[in-house]
Amino acid sequence: MKQFLDLEDIQNVPNLIEKAIALKTNPFAHKELGNNKSIGLLFFNSSLRTRLSTQKAAQNLGMDVMIMNLNSDGWGLEFEDGSVMNANTAEHIKEAAAVISQYVDIIALRAFPSLTDKKKDEEEQIIKSFQKYASVPVVNMESATAHPLQALTDAITITEFKQKNRPKVVLTWAPHPRALPHAVPNSFAKMMQMIAVDFVITHPKGYELNPEITKNTPIIYNQEEALKGADFVYAKNWSSYNDYGQIKSTDENWMVTKSKLQTAKFMHCLPVRRNVIVADEVLDSNQSLVIQQANNRTYAAQAVLKEILENR
Amino acid sequence: MKQFLDLEDIQNVPNLIEKAIALKTNPFAHKELGNNKSIGLLFFNSSLRTRLSTQKAAQNLGMDVMIMNLNSDGWGLEFEDGSVMNANTAEHIKEAAAVISQYVDIIALRAFPSLTDKKKDEEEQIIKSFQKYASVPVVNMESATAHPLQALTDAITITEFKQKNRPKVVLTWAPHPRALPHAVPNSFAKMMQMIAVDFVITHPKGYELNPEITKNTPIIYNQEEALKGADFVYAKNWSSYNDYGQIKSTDENWMVTKSKLQTAKFMHCLPVRRNVIVADEVLDSNQSLVIQQANNRTYAAQAVLKEILENR
Amino acid sequence: MKQFLDLEDIQNVPNLIEKAIALKTNPFAHKELGNNKSIGLLFFNSSLRTRLSTQKAAQNLGMDVMIMNLNSDGWGLEFEDGSVMNANTAEHIKEAAAVISQYVDIIALRAFPSLTDKKKDEEEQIIKSFQKYASVPVVNMESATAHPLQALTDAITITEFKQKNRPKVVLTWAPHPRALPHAVPNSFAKMMQMIAVDFVITHPKGYELNPEITKNTPIIYNQEEALKGADFVYAKNWSSYNDYGQIKSTDENWMVTKSKLQTAKFMHCLPVRRNVIVADEVLDSNQSLVIQQANNRTYAAQAVLKEILENR
Repeated sequence: MKQFLDLEDIQNVPNLIEKAIALKTNPFAHKELGNNKSIGLLFFNSSLRTRLSTQKAAQNLGMDVMIMNLNSDGWGLEFEDGSVMNANTAEHIKEAAAVISQYVDIIALRAFPSLTDKKKDEEEQIIKSFQKYASVPVVNMESATAHPLQALTDAITITEFKQKNRPKVVLTWAPHPRALPHAVPNSFAKMMQMIAVDFVITHPKGYELNPEITKNTPIIYNQEEALKGADFVYAKNWSSYNDYGQIKSTDENWMVTKSKLQTAKFMHCLPVRRNVIVADEVLDSNQSLVIQQANNRTYAAQAVLKEILENR
Repeated sequence: MKQFLDLEDIQNVPNLIEKAIALKTNPFAHKELGNNKSIGLLFFNSSLRTRLSTQKAAQNLGMDVMIMNLNSDGWGLEFEDGSVMNANTAEHIKEAAAVISQYVDIIALRAFPSLTDKKKDEEEQIIKSFQKYASVPVVNMESATAHPLQALTDAITITEFKQKNRPKVVLTWAPHPRALPHAVPNSFAKMMQMIAVDFVITHPKGYELNPEITKNTPIIYNQEEALKGADFVYAKNWSSYNDYGQIKSTDENWMVTKSKLQTAKFMHCLPVRRNVIVADEVLDSNQSLVIQQANNRTYAAQAVLKEILENR
Repeated sequence: MKQFLDLEDIQNVPNLIEKAIALKTNPFAHKELGNNKSIGLLFFNSSLRTRLSTQKAAQNLGMDVMIMNLNSDGWGLEFEDGSVMNANTAEHIKEAAAVISQYVDIIALRAFPSLTDKKKDEEEQIIKSFQKYASVPVVNMESATAHPLQALTDAITITEFKQKNRPKVVLTWAPHPRALPHAVPNSFAKMMQMIAVDFVITHPKGYELNPEITKNTPIIYNQEEALKGADFVYAKNWSSYNDYGQIKSTDENWMVTKSKLQTAKFMHCLPVRRNVIVADEVLDSNQSLVIQQANNRTYAAQAVLKEILENR
């Protein structure tokens, strides 16, 4: 693997899932691989799971980890080509990415979307600029439109917990007081088309995701109907894609409850708002896989970093 | 040791003090103990000594250290059971503690009190919640009502510098422009009842600490009388406990001076406001032990972390 | 080397340059040197290159790295002797420096000038106070008036890229929307007097640097004339020294362009404002050495840290 900007960078998804599961049983077996190698974790936004799990993954591989909160520790970055930088930005991404590449062997990056400028968000300017100007591999720790490490984690979790060859997986929208990005549902929808599952999406009208991503995934507007016979229910809020970044509904009836879940396993990427996205009774039951998912974040990241280190 | 929430978690105080003193002569002797282990240092509040000394202690034991400033790096945490999380908090402690436990082998935590809600502060909601929901040992790096690592440090320092079997130790209140927590005096008072010292407390009326902690420790309202014959004078400001969090006095006469100190050694947990808590002449003399105390923070933390690692 | 406050702490400049260049070919050859040693990187101001490169340099030498953003992570520091600390500062530098010295083997420090109080800035209170009260070596990661690690980097870069024994080096002022410190031009000017180059400075009238630093370096107010026959052009903005901290000119004609540069190599310490300090056509050409300079930051820091570790 030369980089990990999105799921398309994985050559063989089932193979990488198996490698990640193998790493769980012996996480320190490849510590020589990262010897004298370092990774820079660059955050434009808050992070808990991604920050700690990627740091852990790198340390498991013997790497040194350097962390920067770019908004507070560094300088305002300019991303526009040819701009006359006489205003608020002090450093151009051309220099920043090339310079950071001098100090680390891998750059991992988190940068959320604006949710106000659809075109700009879809251009993925920040992560694409780092890819363009960095001389080392770039890893996506959640960008404007994609969260491929989370989706890999989710595929690992489904693989571990599935009890039939082709389980039914339902991605359901759930209410949330704030406008949230599409990165997680996008990457989850993409991943579900790459592994052996029956996948459906359910959400209120007006919450259709980018059809170039969902492709011919069935979209069922009736949540009850969609959840029938589900083996895994993945809840997530997202804002409207068509009416970009808007909240179209906060309908509490879409919250996931025990009775809706039936015997299905419950999944969420976290952080999750209790009794808004999902009822306590679900999260506090053994049907919830959210902690196991969080644990798999380490091995998803470690599998990706290992592939990248091996490729160099 | 299974955890270190408070001094009661120490099985044998004199024994742990001796172990800490032994670590000073050979701090790197147990580096294999922390191999492939990591500690998460989680800060809700500022820290200099605790941050650096705990990091140093963990590194001395060969551990990897992950640091998070929870207020800025992560997500707003919810601590109430059953709450409908449709407001400012994005993640419940149930998930946060369980998730962080997936990435680290020990969680160390700093969270100051509100000083406005006595009941809530005394419930120690933050550290107790982490203890309840974490699946790894939790270490107190100063909570609302206790700072046991500091108290262990202080006991180490007194043990090193005492020149008689049973020295007289005086904890004296001193003025400060801001309302400060009770964590340090609480833990110091508790610790002085666990080791072989004659211990008295002196402060202006209205500054009585929690009597469940001071128990039958003599409280002398006349500072001069209290300091007579002292071998160690420990100065510290705290706000009123009875009139919770209030400043009842800023009487400059309570500042510790050279003449008050006589031949006693001076101690303070730091940071200390010069010429408010204590005069320059004291801090700049060789009667001051504040730097030696700060150094002992490393070995107090290292002794605790070592016990926890050995217990796993 | 006992400390690295400024270039005068280097015993033999050409020798240290050669050592730094040698480290580039085998950066991990001295990993045992920093074993069980730690460095504290203390930041009062933003940093990208310095932060990452010094961290990298220390890790290359096998050291543990502890980073503190002093303004946000720690306590407000007091620098005045004898002050009654009843206002905003919570900890005196006397304690802070002595305490941090208990936890690390080297203290590295970044603290920018006020640009409002010339006398105070020139006293270098922060770094001098750390030097005075720390019991471990102090390294300057850019202080009010000096950036010696950058100047060492620049000398390494000129040594690597020079094509004649005595190249002509021009330091040219360039416009910038904000008032910037003198640390970089000061240290560069000082360094150019320590190695075998023909050195001239060009800037608009009113931008004369401290004559105690520039000494008898030719100052040419006509940029075109100054640049004639240059082998290396080092661009940098700084505010007025005489009219301290003021912006006297933002004349766009001083921006470095391809035609002005002719065949010279272009240097800048970064971050650089594109199309303000220098045109895109320069930075995007192979005449620019800015990325190589940034890379040399690691080896400048590593050479200095190695000397300090070897001296202990």
